[in-house]
Amino acid sequence: MTNTPANLSLTSELRVANWAQNIKRSAMQEMLSLTARPNLISFGLGLPNKELFPRETIAKVANDLLVEEAATLQYGPTASTLKSSIVELMAARGVTCREEQVFLTTGSQQAINMLARLLLNPGGQVMMEEVTYPGFMQVLEPFQADVLAIPTNYAEGIDVDAVEAHLKNGARPAFLYCITDGHNPLGISLPLEKRERLVALAREYGVPIIEDDPYGFLSYEETNLPPLRALDEDWVFYSGSFSKILAPALRVGWLVVPEELVFKLSAIKESYDIDTATWGQRTIGAFMEAGLLPNHIDLLRREYGSRRDTMLEALEAHFPAGSRWTKPRNGMFIWVELPEHIQVTDYLQRA
Amino acid sequence: MTNTPANLSLTSELRVANWAQNIKRSAMQEMLSLTARPNLISFGLGLPNKELFPRETIAKVANDLLVEEAATLQYGPTASTLKSSIVELMAARGVTCREEQVFLTTGSQQAINMLARLLLNPGGQVMMEEVTYPGFMQVLEPFQADVLAIPTNYAEGIDVDAVEAHLKNGARPAFLYCITDGHNPLGISLPLEKRERLVALAREYGVPIIEDDPYGFLSYEETNLPPLRALDEDWVFYSGSFSKILAPALRVGWLVVPEELVFKLSAIKESYDIDTATWGQRTIGAFMEAGLLPNHIDLLRREYGSRRDTMLEALEAHFPAGSRWTKPRNGMFIWVELPEHIQVTDYLQRA
Repeated sequence: MTNTPANLSLTSELRVANWAQNIKRSAMQEMLSLTARPNLISFGLGLPNKELFPRETIAKVANDLLVEEAATLQYGPTASTLKSSIVELMAARGVTCREEQVFLTTGSQQAINMLARLLLNPGGQVMMEEVTYPGFMQVLEPFQADVLAIPTNYAEGIDVDAVEAHLKNGARPAFLYCITDGHNPLGISLPLEKRERLVALAREYGVPIIEDDPYGFLSYEETNLPPLRALDEDWVFYSGSFSKILAPALRVGWLVVPEELVFKLSAIKESYDIDTATWGQRTIGAFMEAGLLPNHIDLLRREYGSRRDTMLEALEAHFPAGSRWTKPRNGMFIWVELPEHIQVTDYLQRA
Repeated sequence: MTNTPANLSLTSELRVANWAQNIKRSAMQEMLSLTARPNLISFGLGLPNKELFPRETIAKVANDLLVEEAATLQYGPTASTLKSSIVELMAARGVTCREEQVFLTTGSQQAINMLARLLLNPGGQVMMEEVTYPGFMQVLEPFQADVLAIPTNYAEGIDVDAVEAHLKNGARPAFLYCITDGHNPLGISLPLEKRERLVALAREYGVPIIEDDPYGFLSYEETNLPPLRALDEDWVFYSGSFSKILAPALRVGWLVVPEELVFKLSAIKESYDIDTATWGQRTIGAFMEAGLLPNHIDLLRREYGSRRDTMLEALEAHFPAGSRWTKPRNGMFIWVELPEHIQVTDYLQRA
């Protein structure tokens, strides 16, 4: 039989990249479709409560911008006023930075993807917790990266001794990926002493830290701990997001990085999606310029804090003896471990 | 002297990925900043005329969506109604496709980036014209791809004989990248015979074509030629965009691909930026459902067509004898070649 490609079915004939042959399903799309069902309350995925979106205000601000200026719908550079509002926002977390260190992205998922693209070679080494944000693991897939998995758990967070041991033994990963506050999915916020040690290690060994911080502003305690970026401005690349503190559908996040990386990130950004939607950017800019964000974040902290307490009480009242869980200071996640003798799959069946 | 990394400056110490060491500047950001100047009319970059954005309508549609439904600001899957409107839009170009073959992206730049990510291995081979869209070359940079450059020019477009000769000689690139209509920057639309031959070659040799088509709907002649996707549904992966026919700042584009690729693209999309902004998606969906897009495209064709004619007349009247240029059927680009004896750099100085 001769080789006649045109007669074969596409599936057998089309060649995708090696890494992409392993993609079996798209978990998040399936979950998003499920959570869009009207009668389901989802505790997964870090979905903010849609009833708390300040949508009347956003609608008005966005409308005014369009009426005032046709360029609101055009391609365009990031407004300096938005960058300066972000500088101010970061100052509230104890971070000192300049407009020239702020880089806007289409949400924090794109931010961490772009940083990985900037720092990591194919097959290169990355240090991360053994349990971490699944969206970051998806970022790594095309790199077929060599993952140095660091022990972690809901009570203690990342094992900094293990990080240090690897570095002492000569490991020099392209970066350490880290969620400092309201860890997804563990719910933990790292104690200050671990933050200080991580930053000292990054400096000592010249290994940058990508600090993924969508939940740092959603703090439910009187005292909020400083992000790693507050402790070091050279070796911590900070990723923030408006998705959890304003609204995901604006798709805007930001990076705070050393200034000399910004033009490289600009080139990567252009190749990804040209620019971050001008209308969305300007809407957030006007919302912040009007001074509305701090009060809105305070509202979210009260509302989510009270929901956290309700959930913790429900766990206390209804979960079997021997169960353990995080009491999160920040964010949207509680990690629950049931006692050994319980078969979780049985519960799943009954649910 | 001992090795004390912490004392070195960041610039000398930080290691970026190999390919990223070559990023010297971010050309598009610089040009976007220039074009944002109030007194400059830019003929570069494929910027649509902002005065033609239907901004009152967009503002109203977007506002109504927010008032009606808080989930407009939430993460969410792509609405089936938008996909079905895109199926209808494609039918007007002679393309038969199904909702299941439509995949939404944050503009067509992301669409071609994602397709390259899906199809190309690091160091893999790509076939493209020697002169093509610079944003696609930026997509290729991280792959350090082996580029098979095909001769092209403003009078004839891509040299299909050269494509065939490479394939006959055994070349099997991951894909051929191609702009069929209103080529950026050459302004050419391929003659029908070349379209038919390219598609036949793709089928015969099992090499997919990425058809990048932001300008196909902006046609200024009575007859519009069919895109490659109208001639083959297995081997042509079509990328469309709302940036030129509606507004760039919504950042929405779409792919039409074989259905079995969609879940792989979903996984890549999640790793890039989770989902395409729900608000922007729904605004476009409502605009299309109200039946407003065909008339708007007709308006753009008249307006841009008349501007094209004005520019061609100005070239005829004012450019030196021996100059040659494209008379584009589609899109936003005219490619001008001055006679050999003219030093373009002298003109640049004087300008």
